[in-house]
Amino acid sequence: MAKSDKDFVKEVTPRTEDYSQWYLDVILKAEMMDYAPVKGCMVIRPYGYSLWENMQKRLDKRFKETGHKNAYFPLFIPESLLQKEAEHVEGFAPEVAWVTQGGNDKLTERLVVRPTSEAIICAMYARWIQSWRDLPILLNQWCNVVRWEKVTRPFLRTSEFLWQEGHTAHRTEEEAEEEARKMLAVYVDFVENDLAIPVVAGRKTEREKFAGALRTYSIEALMSDGKALQAGTSHNLGQHFAKVFDITFLDQDDQLKYVWQSSWGVSTRLIGAIIMVHGDDRGLCMPPKVAPIQVVIVPIITKKAREEVLAAGQRLLDEFSDSLRIEFDDREGYSPGWKYNEWEMKGVPLRMEIGPRDLEKEQVVLVRRDTGEKEIVPRAALKERLPALLEEIQDNMLKKAKAFREENTHQTNSYEEFKKIIEEKRGFIIAHWCGDQECEEKIKAETKATIRCIPFEQEEGEGKCIYCGEKAESVVYFARAY
Amino acid sequence: MAKSDKDFVKEVTPRTEDYSQWYLDVILKAEMMDYAPVKGCMVIRPYGYSLWENMQKRLDKRFKETGHKNAYFPLFIPESLLQKEAEHVEGFAPEVAWVTQGGNDKLTERLVVRPTSEAIICAMYARWIQSWRDLPILLNQWCNVVRWEKVTRPFLRTSEFLWQEGHTAHRTEEEAEEEARKMLAVYVDFVENDLAIPVVAGRKTEREKFAGALRTYSIEALMSDGKALQAGTSHNLGQHFAKVFDITFLDQDDQLKYVWQSSWGVSTRLIGAIIMVHGDDRGLCMPPKVAPIQVVIVPIITKKAREEVLAAGQRLLDEFSDSLRIEFDDREGYSPGWKYNEWEMKGVPLRMEIGPRDLEKEQVVLVRRDTGEKEIVPRAALKERLPALLEEIQDNMLKKAKAFREENTHQTNSYEEFKKIIEEKRGFIIAHWCGDQECEEKIKAETKATIRCIPFEQEEGEGKCIYCGEKAESVVYFARAY
Repeated sequence: MAKSDKDFVKEVTPRTEDYSQWYLDVILKAEMMDYAPVKGCMVIRPYGYSLWENMQKRLDKRFKETGHKNAYFPLFIPESLLQKEAEHVEGFAPEVAWVTQGGNDKLTERLVVRPTSEAIICAMYARWIQSWRDLPILLNQWCNVVRWEKVTRPFLRTSEFLWQEGHTAHRTEEEAEEEARKMLAVYVDFVENDLAIPVVAGRKTEREKFAGALRTYSIEALMSDGKALQAGTSHNLGQHFAKVFDITFLDQDDQLKYVWQSSWGVSTRLIGAIIMVHGDDRGLCMPPKVAPIQVVIVPIITKKAREEVLAAGQRLLDEFSDSLRIEFDDREGYSPGWKYNEWEMKGVPLRMEIGPRDLEKEQVVLVRRDTGEKEIVPRAALKERLPALLEEIQDNMLKKAKAFREENTHQTNSYEEFKKIIEEKRGFIIAHWCGDQECEEKIKAETKATIRCIPFEQEEGEGKCIYCGEKAESVVYFARAY
Repeated sequence: MAKSDKDFVKEVTPRTEDYSQWYLDVILKAEMMDYAPVKGCMVIRPYGYSLWENMQKRLDKRFKETGHKNAYFPLFIPESLLQKEAEHVEGFAPEVAWVTQGGNDKLTERLVVRPTSEAIICAMYARWIQSWRDLPILLNQWCNVVRWEKVTRPFLRTSEFLWQEGHTAHRTEEEAEEEARKMLAVYVDFVENDLAIPVVAGRKTEREKFAGALRTYSIEALMSDGKALQAGTSHNLGQHFAKVFDITFLDQDDQLKYVWQSSWGVSTRLIGAIIMVHGDDRGLCMPPKVAPIQVVIVPIITKKAREEVLAAGQRLLDEFSDSLRIEFDDREGYSPGWKYNEWEMKGVPLRMEIGPRDLEKEQVVLVRRDTGEKEIVPRAALKERLPALLEEIQDNMLKKAKAFREENTHQTNSYEEFKKIIEEKRGFIIAHWCGDQECEEKIKAETKATIRCIPFEQEEGEGKCIYCGEKAESVVYFARAY
């Protein structure tokens, strides 16, 4: 029995009705994840994991091109190591999972399941680094980390998540700063060009920086409900960790010095960003560069032309499966309409329809997920048209997301207007800030908006703090955030 | 100051003197790993991790070609889930790490850090599988697992290790059996052809099978000290887990049935096998197909020809870096001899020497790690010769390892001789066994040798059990093992 054409879309809550529910409906229906029988944890299903693998490949290539190597450090961190850096332990201790027993024995020292690996990596760097010749050390690790979260949301905030964490050690302060900025630029490049998500890059305030860092940089994206999402961070750690872990080197001038460090990471949280930036009421919309499936072939089978159509579909699959991530949906018992809905829910960028009439005319019908546009393409032109069209989709998705962000980025000097915008429109608000943590905190308490970042690009001229009216230190981005 | 040519080799204990110490010396000197400040855990350094990445790529390709998809399941397993399958919990409970506290709260139910993921995956399969249309499910997961080991040895047995675990569910018993056998064949193919390690494939005895399996298959390799190493396993789980986790499906005949399952895995332990099969007193010897670096260019610099030689080395690097994993060791302050030793320690399959005389003659000198043979190759012939030579090395390494295994595989019908072989020569012993667990256990108690596997290929004809003299059920491989 063919299932009804509308099943899929009907089961998804519209975004305007309940955005959070829409998000959950879509990722479950698209089989991106499922809830696990462990508090706050999720299962990343093959479709979601395939997206992550594509993201990993493209990021890993960039890391290696910038001179980094991958390594693997232990999952467990002895409590005493975590406690060495005061700010670090204060920031992370309340949200870690503790291993207290191994086999049948109670442990003499409790172990933390890594929430991040600065502590264990610094302990190793102290051993590996002796001379300036050993520097820089440029390592990255792909792994799972655990943060014991009270309120969780799939991909955005889960007790366990997957990520990469870069950890570097340098001779000079300038080099560490350059590295932190360089890797943030790598993230900007990846997120904008591969995920089609425009971001604002800048520095975090003291209040929002990483526990143990000298300075934290971040990229901030705007979701389609007008809330911001921190999409990646990069930290100049200064010598904070070097001093407590005693990571020293003999410099060329024969002086023993502490190294300068950086760390930086992005996580499966980016999957949440893709969903919330590009998705709509019909489901996901995957950027072609990282889409698990870039093109899906759906045959329009009639009784008469059954074999020919299936054979043509198979030939198309064979022709393109080396150059594209393409699938042929030849399942029996499902109508073409039902299949269209399912692949739209999964956000496949391009659908290729092929039926008896198309065979006759030596053509296929291509339907874009991003615009819904149909295009009839001669069979012979496909080889050129498919990659070109995927590129157009990728470009258009970034353009659309940029336009949305621009529409939803407001500028104001009035706190009254600020409150109104946050309440009624959300989005980013660009405003002046005096640099005082008190103003930052009061704004948060009164509006739930936080300073997302102090953008690298600062306007000329003076201004007054949106809250206290004193002379402003900088222009910053405010938003309510995930 | 140029370091002495001999530093490296001198610091490594010869294999004949102390094999265990040789193993540790080599992996530390070659920077494969380092000890971590956590009991039983290790750090996989970039050189070791790069080997693992190459292994992963080649295995993952094979998994995907056989229809498997990757997914990710939670690190933590609630105690109650682990306890569902009786044999499984009995096998694993004594060696797991327990999380008992999250943040500041004591957990109401303890969590196990996964020692393997059958329990958590079966809980999900019970939810995902309803109809025969949902079958088979063919998933794989790359992840870290934890087993609280009392005695550890880097790569071979560590409290945390990296691995892949395949988990499949099928309609019929035959399909599950076919899958378990097919994936063992994939392991044989990978380990023999990519790692150049010959293996014996067969079934484990009841005593040695996986906790919860119906049947376990394994591949067994022989290390250069004559001890065996289990290099990979594949399990036909039958319906053991399906019944306790209630994984049922409505079959085509409208009957509700339990699924049939398999699971299979290999781990970073294979790195230990590579080291112990191919390494020698000069260090590691990497099989070209997975070697982190396949070719290293070492320039012979003289004062007069310095720039020319360095430029020639750089050109060679540029020419081959797209097609090979090649490095150019242009470090200052190290003599060529010192570099030779270091790259030999790291087991780079091929060294390319280039000096002023080679430039004149438009040639390079190639030196093989596996045989030490030198070969002068015209510059113009390199493009063809390099990949061909790497293939020859790969083939030769497998041939050598096979010859070693043959020399060290003994056949006997006398228990006295059996004991003598195990004591004096080690290696594999092929012998008849009645199938009785009592004989198996007594042999182990008296000789420390275990039944590695019951090989798929069984001789014709009858025999008598090596221990009790009763009619033998099969011919089996015995060995002392890691």
